[in-house]
Amino acid sequence: MLIINTGNGKGKTTAAMGQILRALGHGWKVGVIQLFKGKEFYGEQNVFKKFKNIDWYSYAPKHPFCIPVKNKKVLINVGKECQKALLKLEKLISLKKSYDMIVLDEFNIALKDGFIKLNELLELLNAYASKTTIIITGRCAPKALIDAADLVTEMKEIKHPYNIGIKAEEGIEY
Amino acid sequence: MLIINTGNGKGKTTAAMGQILRALGHGWKVGVIQLFKGKEFYGEQNVFKKFKNIDWYSYAPKHPFCIPVKNKKVLINVGKECQKALLKLEKLISLKKSYDMIVLDEFNIALKDGFIKLNELLELLNAYASKTTIIITGRCAPKALIDAADLVTEMKEIKHPYNIGIKAEEGIEY
Repeated sequence: MLIINTGNGKGKTTAAMGQILRALGHGWKVGVIQLFKGKEFYGEQNVFKKFKNIDWYSYAPKHPFCIPVKNKKVLINVGKECQKALLKLEKLISLKKSYDMIVLDEFNIALKDGFIKLNELLELLNAYASKTTIIITGRCAPKALIDAADLVTEMKEIKHPYNIGIKAEEGIEY
Repeated sequence: MLIINTGNGKGKTTAAMGQILRALGHGWKVGVIQLFKGKEFYGEQNVFKKFKNIDWYSYAPKHPFCIPVKNKKVLINVGKECQKALLKLEKLISLKKSYDMIVLDEFNIALKDGFIKLNELLELLNAYASKTTIIITGRCAPKALIDAADLVTEMKEIKHPYNIGIKAEEGIEY
């Protein structure tokens, strides 16, 4: 089953984390490939690293949004990191005893910005999503990915304290 | 801070669970008052009961949607259970060393169906939401609650396998 959490609102990654928790509660084995988020910043990372049934891989710690456009060298590096993430996915799904759930956090952003090619990702997913559960998060999920998915939710921002100048808060946003 | 997860799509409770996980990762103390879901059905309940920093209370295990309309006795019982949930909230927020986060799962449904009165809930929240983080989930959040909230996300269904006849799946829906 292919699940997509997209939209401009809060809750895309957070719902995926809740989904992982639910899966772990049923004894599933879970793999997470996370882009653009660093390794030790988020509260959930602290908790999940205590679990045996989850493997967590982080690539391209800086979000492209945070990189000055002119810094081509850094952008090339982000591209390389995203390719590593795709290779990791390929490796995870080729394992004989594979995962019951794989979360591809912020992969929609990598697709949108061209760091990962949609057809390459879809090829991997087509071979695999019938056997397991794949969750892809991030804004701007491309239409072809939505077409291929079984369950798509748009997290739509109705109201957010950012808009009245309140900054990201520990425990809430990270 | 008052956070609302509403809408007809998947991810309202799931995102709240992810949020709890994030909060626990930062050492927060979390209380959950959950309606309409039983005590041992959901994967996340199995995981969270291993944590020390979370207290979990369940009321009215059957969703009103699952109760035949004519069965007034059962409905009266749901009402009583929802009142107990509200009293529990009152108790939790009056504790001297209180919670950093309180999740009121499916309270929007209880508001919609009249099992909890909006003004009674708002009165409790007004006294408390400035000091801590409250998350309320469920479809059909009333407008007055949205007005009072700081962060509101609508989880909007774009595509769901229910619609092509696929049933709720362990590890995904519960």
